[in-house]
Amino acid sequence: MKLTGDFTLPGEAGYEELTLKLAKKWGADVIRDSDGTVLSKEIVDSDYDIYSTVCVIRDHNEWLKEHPDCYQESFLMSKPVMAEGYMLTIHLLDGYFDEQFSLNSSDDSLKYWEVFDRTTNEKIDKDKWIYDRETGNVTIQKVTPYHFYTVNFLAFQIWEQISMYNHVTNNWDKEHLAPLDPRNKEAEEYLINWMEEWCINHPNTDVVRFTSMFYNFAWIWSDDPENRYWFSDWASYDFSVSPKALDDFEKEYGYALTSEDFINQGKLHVTHMPATKRQLDYMEFTQKYVSTLGRKLVDIVHRYKKKAYVFYDDSWIGVEPYGKYYKNFNFDGLIKCVFSGYEARLCMGADTPVHELRLHPYLFPVGLGGLPTFSEGGDPALDTKKYWVNVRRALMRDCVDRLGLGGYLHLTEGYPDFVDYVEELLDEFRELKALQKDDKPYTLPVNVAVLHSWGKLRSWSLSGHFHETYMHTLIHVNEALSGLPINVEFINFDDVERNDLSKFNVIINAGKAGSAWSGADNWKNAKVVSKLNEWVAKGGTFIGVGEPSATAGNSHYFAMSDVLGVDKDLGERVCHSKPAFKINNVLREDIIPQGLETKKQDGVYLTSKSAMVLDAGGNTPTVVINPFLRGQGIYLSDFTYSGASARMLLKLMLLSVNAKNKDNFVSNNPDVDVAFYPKSKKLVAVNNTDKDAQTEVKTENGIVGISLKPFEMRIVEV
Amino acid sequence: MKLTGDFTLPGEAGYEELTLKLAKKWGADVIRDSDGTVLSKEIVDSDYDIYSTVCVIRDHNEWLKEHPDCYQESFLMSKPVMAEGYMLTIHLLDGYFDEQFSLNSSDDSLKYWEVFDRTTNEKIDKDKWIYDRETGNVTIQKVTPYHFYTVNFLAFQIWEQISMYNHVTNNWDKEHLAPLDPRNKEAEEYLINWMEEWCINHPNTDVVRFTSMFYNFAWIWSDDPENRYWFSDWASYDFSVSPKALDDFEKEYGYALTSEDFINQGKLHVTHMPATKRQLDYMEFTQKYVSTLGRKLVDIVHRYKKKAYVFYDDSWIGVEPYGKYYKNFNFDGLIKCVFSGYEARLCMGADTPVHELRLHPYLFPVGLGGLPTFSEGGDPALDTKKYWVNVRRALMRDCVDRLGLGGYLHLTEGYPDFVDYVEELLDEFRELKALQKDDKPYTLPVNVAVLHSWGKLRSWSLSGHFHETYMHTLIHVNEALSGLPINVEFINFDDVERNDLSKFNVIINAGKAGSAWSGADNWKNAKVVSKLNEWVAKGGTFIGVGEPSATAGNSHYFAMSDVLGVDKDLGERVCHSKPAFKINNVLREDIIPQGLETKKQDGVYLTSKSAMVLDAGGNTPTVVINPFLRGQGIYLSDFTYSGASARMLLKLMLLSVNAKNKDNFVSNNPDVDVAFYPKSKKLVAVNNTDKDAQTEVKTENGIVGISLKPFEMRIVEV
Repeated sequence: MKLTGDFTLPGEAGYEELTLKLAKKWGADVIRDSDGTVLSKEIVDSDYDIYSTVCVIRDHNEWLKEHPDCYQESFLMSKPVMAEGYMLTIHLLDGYFDEQFSLNSSDDSLKYWEVFDRTTNEKIDKDKWIYDRETGNVTIQKVTPYHFYTVNFLAFQIWEQISMYNHVTNNWDKEHLAPLDPRNKEAEEYLINWMEEWCINHPNTDVVRFTSMFYNFAWIWSDDPENRYWFSDWASYDFSVSPKALDDFEKEYGYALTSEDFINQGKLHVTHMPATKRQLDYMEFTQKYVSTLGRKLVDIVHRYKKKAYVFYDDSWIGVEPYGKYYKNFNFDGLIKCVFSGYEARLCMGADTPVHELRLHPYLFPVGLGGLPTFSEGGDPALDTKKYWVNVRRALMRDCVDRLGLGGYLHLTEGYPDFVDYVEELLDEFRELKALQKDDKPYTLPVNVAVLHSWGKLRSWSLSGHFHETYMHTLIHVNEALSGLPINVEFINFDDVERNDLSKFNVIINAGKAGSAWSGADNWKNAKVVSKLNEWVAKGGTFIGVGEPSATAGNSHYFAMSDVLGVDKDLGERVCHSKPAFKINNVLREDIIPQGLETKKQDGVYLTSKSAMVLDAGGNTPTVVINPFLRGQGIYLSDFTYSGASARMLLKLMLLSVNAKNKDNFVSNNPDVDVAFYPKSKKLVAVNNTDKDAQTEVKTENGIVGISLKPFEMRIVEV
Repeated sequence: MKLTGDFTLPGEAGYEELTLKLAKKWGADVIRDSDGTVLSKEIVDSDYDIYSTVCVIRDHNEWLKEHPDCYQESFLMSKPVMAEGYMLTIHLLDGYFDEQFSLNSSDDSLKYWEVFDRTTNEKIDKDKWIYDRETGNVTIQKVTPYHFYTVNFLAFQIWEQISMYNHVTNNWDKEHLAPLDPRNKEAEEYLINWMEEWCINHPNTDVVRFTSMFYNFAWIWSDDPENRYWFSDWASYDFSVSPKALDDFEKEYGYALTSEDFINQGKLHVTHMPATKRQLDYMEFTQKYVSTLGRKLVDIVHRYKKKAYVFYDDSWIGVEPYGKYYKNFNFDGLIKCVFSGYEARLCMGADTPVHELRLHPYLFPVGLGGLPTFSEGGDPALDTKKYWVNVRRALMRDCVDRLGLGGYLHLTEGYPDFVDYVEELLDEFRELKALQKDDKPYTLPVNVAVLHSWGKLRSWSLSGHFHETYMHTLIHVNEALSGLPINVEFINFDDVERNDLSKFNVIINAGKAGSAWSGADNWKNAKVVSKLNEWVAKGGTFIGVGEPSATAGNSHYFAMSDVLGVDKDLGERVCHSKPAFKINNVLREDIIPQGLETKKQDGVYLTSKSAMVLDAGGNTPTVVINPFLRGQGIYLSDFTYSGASARMLLKLMLLSVNAKNKDNFVSNNPDVDVAFYPKSKKLVAVNNTDKDAQTEVKTENGIVGISLKPFEMRIVEV
């Protein structure tokens, strides 16, 4: 009996027959439009539910022309210019893409502009510089020769970034769509009316799919066609600012933000670095605003008896599903596009009625990084399998409610293997969902907290997709965790200080020194360090990866070095001996899968005589277990996600557990993941590779052997 | 006509015939004793001048037993211990080698002890801890559970380190020699008398060779026989401290130093890190003291019509030849043991009457790192050649007055190739010396300043020999510079701020971020940065190697990034684009010798559109030239000394010069160095390799071709 439903198909006008044929083959219950596609009457009138895509801040060019103060804005910094004499003129927009930005030189805006001597890091008094509206220049008097100067200023965004990207990439010849900022009262009123009208004009729509809300991630383009994307941060709030927002902030928080709170010496505040208190205040301020106005729009949608889903991928600022204000929106569902397991867990873990994943690849000719998908040289079936094995192991742990595709359906013609594989994939998904209907997969008694400076707000995700964040160790750790039979939470340093940690038996801290993920100066807080010391002393397992707990200025660079049994030398200990060690081969063979290589972290050395070294790069230990009273520290110099590394991580985490049979329902092949559903006594095994694979799984009724074809999922009764 | 003289031979009692035979073969004019050897009457009565070795602070055990407060001392920190309850007892000497240290728990000493909570970095009030003389323990009250605590305390050195090393290495069964600290008045008087008596008892000695003065470099041993050398820093002042010294310091400088000024959270202050102002004050205080008492001893030696030479290698604290107080000693000569060219230049550059080099290998059975020299498996002739090619290219630039050997002469029996090669080497030395008698080698119009935080004080050397400092880029740069036909000076950041830089056309800054060599927070000084900006803008060439001018907290990590055209991202710019570039192959082929590989510095990216990239590791530029107004910045990600890298450095430095014929008298083979002596019209070429080599040299009279055998030096008239 084949299961159907729970699947959203992108319909395409002009391809009605294909749409309905694939809807049947893939068991769809919903048809959606996509950016740039319109559903024909034939489809809209069919028995399928209809999702309609809405990007609320775009497509208002006419209105914006009459309200030029309602474009979205951001702070920019002029490129540093060196003074040679005692007067200096700076052309503000030099280096930026002039089709994206235009200066906001209103008086409201100018009061937020600031000029800095970047050689001394000093702000220049307002009476020393003037802005000339005609030339777009700032002229500074009495500068110091051979110092560098910059101006922080506000610029309108006159071209919405996603529109700009599609336009430029596809050489379109259409009008540039500008983004509307609803902050001004008149813009908000306009938008509310517009939403109302939209609902009236779309009587057949069952679900309004918001392409997030108002503010895009920050994407600043340069004037250099060879190097267009000067800055892109998927979680940054830089594109939500305006004089009105800043004025409102001051009223609400009792202090004023400055341009430098955003510009930060030209570095901006990337999500991978820890946030300042002022930045966190501004984020909360924006979250409150976005969720309040968002709720008004959702209420309108509900009034018209439609559901409101949010797509969490473009203008997502203030829509974070783990944020304090997410519930305010009253969304009926969350849709997340996924390449990876951690993105599936991000979606599933959100407190929202319906969880839906938008699978990759999209039905586009070209995919990631310009490589062909549904065009010559592409292999969309293989791409689908590769993404699906990432996502599937996460769904085994916690299954979403629905899947969907996006793009142009006609592109699937000529790719019958893709069409067939999607059917197979959907069968697997529906089986996993059915197994979890009234049941939870068997979970090992391991409760893990991932500790970083963002904590719960950025559960599972860092800032964007895997291929955008692969250089951060934590995304690899998250991806490994997403499919392991354990419990996972994300906590920040306040949580460590304030909450009971005894419910966790493992805490992981993973990242580069100074990053939001490692934690930076949060580790200067002695309360955090001693609380973790105590928690480990009483039995906890603290796992540090890369440069965990690193912060300069203390006795040790790693604040948790006493627990971890290792520290990293920045040069202060270059004259100190670094103890020699021998590899503990018994532990190594038990814990590190054959062939798994660990990359050394230069300068790391042992600080504890009781530390056991499982692997090393030359004289530098790379995998270390350090007993610490009744608990232990574990150090990994590096972590790159693979079946083998995920298995090593699981084995290390299991060291925290004293239970018998603690390796029940664990596959003995790192490339195979398994999940056991106790009520139905079903064991699911998945092969994550493109080769045949065998595994043996210890169960309460003895060992079960399973053979799997490439990418196969198999369900066995035990 | 064979030249003779200018050579110091180590004589050996019992081998009188050998001594006199080799003295003749090698053309010695001086015979010396060595540690552990005594010259027999036959040798002393010969026509040769006699050097006698004197280590003034050793061999006073009897007197010290009656004056136990006159042992030398140092601060130590107890190993960190975690509190679990509210009281904590720490055994102070745990982890240290108990034959090296004993506690100084006199009241004078105790007043300098300090206890720290290392988890909070807070000092514990004196009324919260007590020291128990019987157990050697400190007990701290009202500690915070799960915090770590340490005690800073003073310990006597009851075994002098060089004696300890020789004793332990050779399994001696002799009395441990203790080091005397002359700080107390009675010790000083004792030492002055002893010197007087020594002179009376050594009527045949012509030169008293002081094994440096009073205080050894810091060498702290642990209780772990597998990891004995816990800390060793060849330029550290840690072993010169005592309650008397601290009291005197306070009187002289008007403020008191604390134990933490030395302990520095257990890191101590390694020479490779920038010094604090307090540390610099203490160093000056000690230099004044050592040179004042040293002068008294030298005066005694002079009164007995003997000369006083100083050997700059063991107890050298306060004897730095480039220090402000070196001239105070009134030494007649400086002897430096050498493996490398930079050590030869260190010796030659000192303002002192006679410069002598002690060559390696020493006449010992075993040499560096325990490898055999004059024993089975050793090849002392080859070792000698390898060290000599390093030293010889430096002597071509500036020749010392004398060479010498050390050790046990009888060991040379059975190594006739060594005996013959020393003769050949001495011929080469004497020829180089003769060529420079009234002449200077031709020098290219390149005036280089090497900029680091120690400046002139640590000209040429960092802290110890090459094999001890090879991990620091600057030692490789210094070694390259030591044999190049250019002028070199060493300056610090005060020099940049205060002095005229126009005499330099090249300034080099090379090192790891935060190190004394890169300069650390000195780069926060905007006056330094803007002065260098100006100097480059007006035509200077700033060469940065590794992490030059790196300091966190500014717009750019490299303070000179605008000049260099590169910066390094620590994670703050992970969301910013890093410009792509193409290799400039024309410049690359001209400047980078074939086969020379450059190691990339992770995170380095271009900041300038005009920068020219000569080499790269993947997307990371490794060799960059950046025009900056009338000057330029040059960035090298790394520098490892070799003939090829030295040649690249020379070519880069020559970019600073506009003169015609600027490559005159430069060898076209990186493995061959040449020097031209204008008065005699002699061109000297040396082959630095163990293979045949050819070179062509452009001279005023056309190109000269020279062929050289392995290690050969040849003199050609042009």
